[in-house]
Amino acid sequence: MNYPNGKRSLSNIKSKTTNQTFSNRGMTLEEDINQTNQYYLDMDLAIIHKKPTPIQIVKVNYPKRSAAVITEAYFKQASTTDYNGLYRNHYVDFEAKETKNKHSFPLANVHEHQIHHMESIIKHGGICFMIIRFAHHDETYLLEAKELLAFWYEKEADGRKSIPYTQIKQRGHFIPFKYQTRVDYLSIIDQLYF
Amino acid sequence: MNYPNGKRSLSNIKSKTTNQTFSNRGMTLEEDINQTNQYYLDMDLAIIHKKPTPIQIVKVNYPKRSAAVITEAYFKQASTTDYNGLYRNHYVDFEAKETKNKHSFPLANVHEHQIHHMESIIKHGGICFMIIRFAHHDETYLLEAKELLAFWYEKEADGRKSIPYTQIKQRGHFIPFKYQTRVDYLSIIDQLYF
Repeated sequence: MNYPNGKRSLSNIKSKTTNQTFSNRGMTLEEDINQTNQYYLDMDLAIIHKKPTPIQIVKVNYPKRSAAVITEAYFKQASTTDYNGLYRNHYVDFEAKETKNKHSFPLANVHEHQIHHMESIIKHGGICFMIIRFAHHDETYLLEAKELLAFWYEKEADGRKSIPYTQIKQRGHFIPFKYQTRVDYLSIIDQLYF
Repeated sequence: MNYPNGKRSLSNIKSKTTNQTFSNRGMTLEEDINQTNQYYLDMDLAIIHKKPTPIQIVKVNYPKRSAAVITEAYFKQASTTDYNGLYRNHYVDFEAKETKNKHSFPLANVHEHQIHHMESIIKHGGICFMIIRFAHHDETYLLEAKELLAFWYEKEADGRKSIPYTQIKQRGHFIPFKYQTRVDYLSIIDQLYF
């Protein structure tokens, strides 16, 4: 997808690099979450930010009287999840993924180091989950990390490749779309943890 | 400082861009903290990471059969602190700065949006502080955010430009250098919060 100014979005660039099949529309979910986080911040409800995309910088030019320009750099794979922060005294940590699939969420969207990171977060007392959007259904779910881990270990045990949509509907939590909080995941966290 | 491979380090690049006077040796503190965080992670004590440097990407090339190359990008200013994570059920958030000054820590090293961020973190129940290294004395201190804020508001009230070294010695906490945890700030956090 190209944007009106002819430039590609960062999300698309990223998806091209990592060969993820399902990130073309990830931009929308990311934008919705960023907008929601900004609302939480403005309303002084929570401090949750997306981490910057990790970049390996190789060459930088220093033109006189203007800003340094990076002229060669590469995308690196993130070693943790994309979002973290603080809500009601608690550490909050999550990943967000969008899929075009109608019937399942492919586990190839999640990396093994992210799974290990999520396990650590749970162990040390953080609130950890994944936000999954089914673009076709236009539905967004919060799936607690413990549920995701259960599916992941089935993957390791018997070669499971995806989580059925019906299972996410059942074991996850539907996040309603609201105008000011387009992905109001903290309303679910309130129900689950407070 | 140039490295053996002739490439500049990211920290130096960053310091050139932002015209910070005191970051030339910041690399060392950053490396020490990264090594310490890795040790905490390996020992399963805490999950604390440095956030990637925020970059504004303008142009990317997609060569056939090889990774995408960023050919034009710029450094952006971070809106939060550099480090955050989870320790003993608590959200932990801090910034790290090194100064070559012998007698004081210049408040120009801290940005106003970082101050506001730190205030929010305290308000929402996180553990927030700054790690300050005096390169000349080869001493590293943990200064709790509430102390930093007190100095900051003196700055706003009467034009204070720096925090005296003697004040940091008195109101901060000396972090001893250890081989495996070169900046063992969690030992101070244990004393202060647990």
